[in-house]
Amino acid sequence: MEKLERQQVFRDPIYGYIHIDYAFIENLIDTKVFQRLRRIRQLSGVHMVFHGAEHSRFIHSLGVYELARRFIEIKEINETLSIREQLLFLTAALLHDLGHGAYSHAFEYVFKVNHEKIGAKLIKADQEIGEILDKIDKDFKYDVASIIDKKHKFPIIEQLISSQLDVDRLDYLERDAYFTGAVYGHIDLERLMRIITVKNDKIVFKESGIHAIENYLISRYHMYWQVYYHPKARAFEVILEKIYLRIHDLLESNFDFGHDVTALKRIMEDKNDLEAYREIDDYYMNGLIAHLTKSKDEILSTLSIDFLNRHIWAYLDDTKENAAKIKEIKKEYKDLEKYYTLSTNVEQSAYSETSKNMGDQIYILKKDGNIEPLSAHSSIIHSLITTSIKEDAKFFYKVKK
Amino acid sequence: MEKLERQQVFRDPIYGYIHIDYAFIENLIDTKVFQRLRRIRQLSGVHMVFHGAEHSRFIHSLGVYELARRFIEIKEINETLSIREQLLFLTAALLHDLGHGAYSHAFEYVFKVNHEKIGAKLIKADQEIGEILDKIDKDFKYDVASIIDKKHKFPIIEQLISSQLDVDRLDYLERDAYFTGAVYGHIDLERLMRIITVKNDKIVFKESGIHAIENYLISRYHMYWQVYYHPKARAFEVILEKIYLRIHDLLESNFDFGHDVTALKRIMEDKNDLEAYREIDDYYMNGLIAHLTKSKDEILSTLSIDFLNRHIWAYLDDTKENAAKIKEIKKEYKDLEKYYTLSTNVEQSAYSETSKNMGDQIYILKKDGNIEPLSAHSSIIHSLITTSIKEDAKFFYKVKK
Amino acid sequence: MEKLERQQVFRDPIYGYIHIDYAFIENLIDTKVFQRLRRIRQLSGVHMVFHGAEHSRFIHSLGVYELARRFIEIKEINETLSIREQLLFLTAALLHDLGHGAYSHAFEYVFKVNHEKIGAKLIKADQEIGEILDKIDKDFKYDVASIIDKKHKFPIIEQLISSQLDVDRLDYLERDAYFTGAVYGHIDLERLMRIITVKNDKIVFKESGIHAIENYLISRYHMYWQVYYHPKARAFEVILEKIYLRIHDLLESNFDFGHDVTALKRIMEDKNDLEAYREIDDYYMNGLIAHLTKSKDEILSTLSIDFLNRHIWAYLDDTKENAAKIKEIKKEYKDLEKYYTLSTNVEQSAYSETSKNMGDQIYILKKDGNIEPLSAHSSIIHSLITTSIKEDAKFFYKVKK
Amino acid sequence: MEKLERQQVFRDPIYGYIHIDYAFIENLIDTKVFQRLRRIRQLSGVHMVFHGAEHSRFIHSLGVYELARRFIEIKEINETLSIREQLLFLTAALLHDLGHGAYSHAFEYVFKVNHEKIGAKLIKADQEIGEILDKIDKDFKYDVASIIDKKHKFPIIEQLISSQLDVDRLDYLERDAYFTGAVYGHIDLERLMRIITVKNDKIVFKESGIHAIENYLISRYHMYWQVYYHPKARAFEVILEKIYLRIHDLLESNFDFGHDVTALKRIMEDKNDLEAYREIDDYYMNGLIAHLTKSKDEILSTLSIDFLNRHIWAYLDDTKENAAKIKEIKKEYKDLEKYYTLSTNVEQSAYSETSKNMGDQIYILKKDGNIEPLSAHSSIIHSLITTSIKEDAKFFYKVKK
Repeated sequence: MEKLERQQVFRDPIYGYIHIDYAFIENLIDTKVFQRLRRIRQLSGVHMVFHGAEHSRFIHSLGVYELARRFIEIKEINETLSIREQLLFLTAALLHDLGHGAYSHAFEYVFKVNHEKIGAKLIKADQEIGEILDKIDKDFKYDVASIIDKKHKFPIIEQLISSQLDVDRLDYLERDAYFTGAVYGHIDLERLMRIITVKNDKIVFKESGIHAIENYLISRYHMYWQVYYHPKARAFEVILEKIYLRIHDLLESNFDFGHDVTALKRIMEDKNDLEAYREIDDYYMNGLIAHLTKSKDEILSTLSIDFLNRHIWAYLDDTKENAAKIKEIKKEYKDLEKYYTLSTNVEQSAYSETSKNMGDQIYILKKDGNIEPLSAHSSIIHSLITTSIKEDAKFFYKVKK
Repeated sequence: MEKLERQQVFRDPIYGYIHIDYAFIENLIDTKVFQRLRRIRQLSGVHMVFHGAEHSRFIHSLGVYELARRFIEIKEINETLSIREQLLFLTAALLHDLGHGAYSHAFEYVFKVNHEKIGAKLIKADQEIGEILDKIDKDFKYDVASIIDKKHKFPIIEQLISSQLDVDRLDYLERDAYFTGAVYGHIDLERLMRIITVKNDKIVFKESGIHAIENYLISRYHMYWQVYYHPKARAFEVILEKIYLRIHDLLESNFDFGHDVTALKRIMEDKNDLEAYREIDDYYMNGLIAHLTKSKDEILSTLSIDFLNRHIWAYLDDTKENAAKIKEIKKEYKDLEKYYTLSTNVEQSAYSETSKNMGDQIYILKKDGNIEPLSAHSSIIHSLITTSIKEDAKFFYKVKK
Repeated sequence: MEKLERQQVFRDPIYGYIHIDYAFIENLIDTKVFQRLRRIRQLSGVHMVFHGAEHSRFIHSLGVYELARRFIEIKEINETLSIREQLLFLTAALLHDLGHGAYSHAFEYVFKVNHEKIGAKLIKADQEIGEILDKIDKDFKYDVASIIDKKHKFPIIEQLISSQLDVDRLDYLERDAYFTGAVYGHIDLERLMRIITVKNDKIVFKESGIHAIENYLISRYHMYWQVYYHPKARAFEVILEKIYLRIHDLLESNFDFGHDVTALKRIMEDKNDLEAYREIDDYYMNGLIAHLTKSKDEILSTLSIDFLNRHIWAYLDDTKENAAKIKEIKKEYKDLEKYYTLSTNVEQSAYSETSKNMGDQIYILKKDGNIEPLSAHSSIIHSLITTSIKEDAKFFYKVKK
Repeated sequence: MEKLERQQVFRDPIYGYIHIDYAFIENLIDTKVFQRLRRIRQLSGVHMVFHGAEHSRFIHSLGVYELARRFIEIKEINETLSIREQLLFLTAALLHDLGHGAYSHAFEYVFKVNHEKIGAKLIKADQEIGEILDKIDKDFKYDVASIIDKKHKFPIIEQLISSQLDVDRLDYLERDAYFTGAVYGHIDLERLMRIITVKNDKIVFKESGIHAIENYLISRYHMYWQVYYHPKARAFEVILEKIYLRIHDLLESNFDFGHDVTALKRIMEDKNDLEAYREIDDYYMNGLIAHLTKSKDEILSTLSIDFLNRHIWAYLDDTKENAAKIKEIKKEYKDLEKYYTLSTNVEQSAYSETSKNMGDQIYILKKDGNIEPLSAHSSIIHSLITTSIKEDAKFFYKVKK
């Protein structure tokens, strides 16, 4: 793959610059499906609590790409991956979030789709992307898709992109901390890059840097509890889920929305309608919801007004002590309960997937050459694992006036 | 005015926290018209070049309020302003951008409205705001509006909110530098707050801190030329202006948009239709433009597609040397020239108003007690003033395929 | 106490400015014994490993004072402490390290002195300080001394200055992280200041901020293991201890040093010789050691050469596995073993005192109004406590050529 | 030159890490003459005003080396310099300040030595350095010395190390800003590295990055006037100069100092006595001055007491208006005037050499391929040049009690 005559750059608040060495990366960034990521916020509901968190999946995707580019310069990774694999890594890093839609978690939950599956499909089906990647070789786009869809054909690249300590998480923790203004969340990236290595076809970390990993896990733990799982952000996500739910139900009953909802309808009919899927970004949904504040369906207008004006719902710990109170609230709503209340825990929340088995799959390369899971090393890690699986179930509800 | 039992805070990446001492400020933030600022980006086209600049006018407005809160703690300002004036200052700082709409500059230019006038009107007319401010006293909302509309009734507060060195600029320079990742733009806020004082009913700065002001003006100069006036950001603004222009022309000819454009139509008919105006935020316009990519009007669909997919237009220096070339390009477009080309200079650009007469109205309190304009003090300032008025006229155009 | 007409400031890289409101604080800073703190490094051996850590106890003392000043502005603390107690707090914060000498830990260990006792004595005996504090009232200096010597007369102030979470630690963790360049060590100071309060004459922290405390303790844990307990920094401290030891032994045998060592001799004879003590700063010891590189005593010259040229000693884990090897090394040195080898653990190291019982004495004010120790709340804290008491015994030795 | 099996690093607060790729660089750092730089502060008197500025020439030298290492990775520089020249650049960058002594400016002025000449001589004469560099080739150390002594044998390397925009300045501006806490002084290093290139055997900067250079020059300008030329820092330098002057005069009259002053005496007798010169670091001078506070020579003890306790002298603008007052002050001191007063301007100050002809020798590579001096481009630069040559003459004096 020929390099650009002159390296291109994007100014970035986290890394100073994002560096583009290859023309095909530049071309991928210019495609419509990638530019679409500018129109999807990284942290759907979080900006309602941390008002700085207005950044998009576009900026995060560039960041993950930049980290992949830097990881490739690490001697052991550079020597392990062939040139083609390095290009696969860069491409998969850049495109890993391509399948996301507007307010993905809520959307996926209601419409029963999966953004990683869709991302893989988009890479295989999109014409612009195909034209670019086919020039590398005819299998290239299929291999990129297989990495995003975790088919285990390229286990090291999959580990680098999606594991307990990967370029995706390293970028979003640091970036989300920057934009929210959280003091936690800062990571010793340079140190982590000095201790990462490859052993037995596995990404491992040298024992000497165990403190940097501890620090990373703790930063992550704090970002989850302070930012991602903030109850008010979760409450806002609940409103979104309910909006999708009501739209879904009304679509089924052929309600007249007074607005173009073709794309949503098409997806309901065919989960593989990529063209329709691509339309559903924040611009689409926000424009729709703004319109729906005036809907003749009262449930939909109520939910949309709450969304637009940040009327955040109330919540209670979903405990035995509160059971009677919760029952009472539900009862008040009668058969509308499904639109105005939700019992949920963080495992079902927007960020749940990323918090599973914290620390589980990080392997330490000991000085004697053996490999051990990190949790065997540190009582702090052990307690983090134990702590993070706690459920934190909450009951969210709209307060009746 | 009673203070809150417990000071409320918002986490902010620039100031750590935004501190809310009064219940009425909290209530103002919760109004619909203020929450609406979440739905309007601070730097309309800039995020297409500096991808971090996705922050809203909401976060900036909170920042300006926070600076006003800190300025009130400066001894000389505290002693000069009565308690009521302090509350006016806080309120006007918070609400100073209330009148902004989606992509304001382009919108105002085409629809002949002015966001400061509208902001003042909104403060006087909005029911929620009225209910909150009337509790302070019956004149309060009118006085806030008069400050935003620069009626010179409260000259010191006007100077603090809108002059060559004010809480508005201090916030946006630092904040825009943070979100774009620009290395310039940082301001020695603490130092500036130590040298500001009041003399003869005028905000002045002590001679001892002249370096801090020089530094501020130079940061501003660099932010203008590196960020706000970046030709690609200006090119993107041109597309927006053309979209508004085409919509305007089509509205006049009663074109069927296949989408709800009532609010825009109402404003065209009555520039004082605040209800319609309030609807026009980024959600509204982005949803509309996304829809218009499929418009049956070819001009509108072309422009909307360019907007959505970041097909940034080309540009030339609008000089004698390029005159023939420019004439040629215009000629190609025949009578569509008005939709696909634009000659403009920075004085007409989105940020022009703020760059006028840089350095002109900053007054220095000399050690001997006399007051002098800053430009008399420093050859650097003098050259900045001279430099900044340079026109930088450019011709923007869509490249024909 | 009258405030200064015009608040004075010192530019500080951590806080922006250190603010001086009272003339007597300014006068205390100008005393000879306080200026002497400029001549004592904050982290004696650490700068040999983290070359940025060249900052003095002077800058740290100003920082602790500044934090005290800010703590006084916290409503609950402000209301709990009388004006006189507030001044006591400011003064004790400023002067808390006054008793430190050159390379204190090694010095105190060999010469059997205690810097807190000496600090308290200096405050009572120093003429300049006396003149300044006597003007407040005649008991003032004795009360300041009592706080530094922990006589429990002012328990809240003592807790604020010296406990598990105090202004001393808050300053040095952040400051040492800044100067070493450690990524860890950053503290959410603003958040901590929002959750601190007073209950039952005790400093307690509100339950809502427990994450900020966890983060603080983890930062501290990382700073200890990554910076303060870095084996090479400890190895350097060992050389210093051996230099003091050899000087001590030679002083006893009336060795002719060819250099003025009066001050050290006087302290050996009288641990309360404050005048002699005050002379022993880094300038004194560094000048002496530089001279001693040419000493006719071979042990002293060897040790001094190692010190000056950063010939850092070797070390082994002091474990059963290494017992034979350690025995062998000691044997080689015969009766000089005491000058060239040392078995020690972190509990005996320069920073040991500060790491004892981590987390133990931090009290949480629960929402129900009850107070509980922090460790009852968090399994992370529990594991930190367990982890931090691990001994990490090491054997340090000069490698024989 | 073989690279290290494993790159070594030093943690650095400015660059994250200093990276060592070659064993010979590691060995150079371990030499006694290089370790000696730990014992010389970077900004002799400045820390008396900006208390964070306690960093050493050691940390700055590592920083300059790191920048050289990064500059070598810039394509155009990499292709212009042969491998041997790259090693020369790294070595000269690391060793460029080797000739500095304690409080160099004052020392050099009184003892008529020049640190660059001495640095070049040390490199040629030092045994440890010779052993390391001779292994590269026999001419290597002479070539390094020639670069430091500016013999124009390697003009590009000399330009990279010592010109108006070089690795030396880039490091110290950023580093001094960091340690003093100055808000100014920050440089867009990454941008500068993207616009630097080589043309006609000259370092030039691409026109597109002219704003980054303007910003650099303005940062420099502010650092000079706010930090380096701060009158109190200059006043402290004056005391140092007077101490050296009195020592010099007393050495000539064979005064008995009661302390070892052999090294100073030897230099007075032979300016090329490198062994003596090497002894004179801050440890030596600070130990001596501390001792001299008790000197029987009253002038010396007075000056030393002022130095040690930060009794900073007073100053007046050296203008016609003050001429009578200055004459009066001098008169009071009679023949001691030379020890207690000094008329001087910034051109004679500790940092004067670096401020000469600001902006003069920076060359811009225009888009048309021509080279022009920067000052032809920008009125801001033009005014900076004009401004910076202003003399700012001051009269410093000890206030008589």
